[in-house]
Amino acid sequence: MFRIIPRDTTFFTMFSEIADNLISAARALVDLFDHYQDTAAKTAEIKRIEHIGDDLTHAILTKLNQTFITPFDREDIYRLTSSFDDVLDLINSAADRITMYKIIDPPPAAAELSKIILAQCEELGRAVAHLQKNGDVLTRCIEVKRFENAADVASREAISRLFEREKDPINLIKIKELLEVLETATDKAEDVANVLETVVLKNN
Amino acid sequence: MFRIIPRDTTFFTMFSEIADNLISAARALVDLFDHYQDTAAKTAEIKRIEHIGDDLTHAILTKLNQTFITPFDREDIYRLTSSFDDVLDLINSAADRITMYKIIDPPPAAAELSKIILAQCEELGRAVAHLQKNGDVLTRCIEVKRFENAADVASREAISRLFEREKDPINLIKIKELLEVLETATDKAEDVANVLETVVLKNN
Amino acid sequence: MFRIIPRDTTFFTMFSEIADNLISAARALVDLFDHYQDTAAKTAEIKRIEHIGDDLTHAILTKLNQTFITPFDREDIYRLTSSFDDVLDLINSAADRITMYKIIDPPPAAAELSKIILAQCEELGRAVAHLQKNGDVLTRCIEVKRFENAADVASREAISRLFEREKDPINLIKIKELLEVLETATDKAEDVANVLETVVLKNN
Repeated sequence: MFRIIPRDTTFFTMFSEIADNLISAARALVDLFDHYQDTAAKTAEIKRIEHIGDDLTHAILTKLNQTFITPFDREDIYRLTSSFDDVLDLINSAADRITMYKIIDPPPAAAELSKIILAQCEELGRAVAHLQKNGDVLTRCIEVKRFENAADVASREAISRLFEREKDPINLIKIKELLEVLETATDKAEDVANVLETVVLKNN
Repeated sequence: MFRIIPRDTTFFTMFSEIADNLISAARALVDLFDHYQDTAAKTAEIKRIEHIGDDLTHAILTKLNQTFITPFDREDIYRLTSSFDDVLDLINSAADRITMYKIIDPPPAAAELSKIILAQCEELGRAVAHLQKNGDVLTRCIEVKRFENAADVASREAISRLFEREKDPINLIKIKELLEVLETATDKAEDVANVLETVVLKNN
Repeated sequence: MFRIIPRDTTFFTMFSEIADNLISAARALVDLFDHYQDTAAKTAEIKRIEHIGDDLTHAILTKLNQTFITPFDREDIYRLTSSFDDVLDLINSAADRITMYKIIDPPPAAAELSKIILAQCEELGRAVAHLQKNGDVLTRCIEVKRFENAADVASREAISRLFEREKDPINLIKIKELLEVLETATDKAEDVANVLETVVLKNN
């Protein structure tokens, strides 16, 4: 059987752009927690990257709505786009907590979790690059999930420690929420991996 | 090409009823925070409207499951119905916090956010009315999103202020949650707009 | 019209396994709160059951991705699987709060809510068993929703009481979250019932 309609490659390019933009945001987040200074400028930069992500999301959904033949299930393109967007939203949301709650001294787990988020985003970038070329998407996805487990353990331990040591309830609320937002970002990265897995399994 | 099976208009009528009911709930919420008295009766009224919404949701999903030809994608009818229901649930949930937490003195941002929710629901009502007549749905959807951004800014500022001023952690927990529930309602209204946008773009 | 391809019954068997595993988890949760001792061993046991659930979820999604003809809509198989998984995750998450927050004395509502969760899971098990044999799935689903309403009332009352009595904000945060996680488990059980309802209505 031969293909009559050539596969549209635009979607793959657009997903690469989305992944690259997400990696930039994750890098900025790591830098924020690793060198905790100029936080106002750094969180503003993450916000700027998030706006680029909004435009990329909007562009891909518009294209999806106007395209009749898609390279893989429309439903999966939709899910992939929105789960990528969720990760970016949560990275921004974590940075946002810094300014909103005037957090002076984030716990080491915040830097640790950001690094896990970055590692996941880099794996997702590789997976997306492999998607078009039938590369090893599934191994990348497994890595993303492994990182999610690591983040889960790290955040649980950090929150447990927080409840032991932090006696100021208002500060506890702030730090707990920061850690939860970071952990949720790693869950959402796992969601992206799950969609990618589905796409590969359906099309093999 | 001519249409053999006439488009079923019942779904449009049902969505108008859902939108009208939602607008009633949003109005009752604005009244609750604008004139903060008789709160027990007012929250009971919102609960009553929410039950009507449950019946409307159930009716449309039953019809969907029994209808073979739908005026637009079944998946989108499903999504539209449940995202409308989410907004109503959150309006009720916000009102509920008043009784559950015995909130005596809600912050001005609660009234402000309710008004944004009402403005969104009115736009959604107009969008739904335009849907059948090919009116300007997209402009209405853009407005709903603009309002969501405004709500986001308002709630972030209000929560940031709360952390500065409120020294009683238990009161802080109550008010923070009230503001978050209100802000989530505006997110869910944006979700409705996103589905409506998809429906229009697919069918043009 | 006669059927050329026989319906694959594997999915029904797999959903029965998922339901049975979920019932085990819910039973362990009831036991944990009813006899509040050896909590470390009991929460570890729930974690073990959750891992089995992860494997079952993975197996059914893999099969779904590789199966061309499914006994009901792929989308609904996907939704059913992930909503079942959500209930299990939340049961584990509730148990987890015990160790994470070192909760010494959970409120009676925790035991009450666990019993509601178990009752729901048992109804879901019956519904899944009926699914293949065209038994009375809908009545089971209505029961699941009725239990969700009961859980909603129970958790609201318990949280309201907590805010009245608990003066230690950090303890309040712990118990509030435990109750919310338990209540969310009953919401997710309702989601499972909603998917089952959809499946039945579409296929009748």
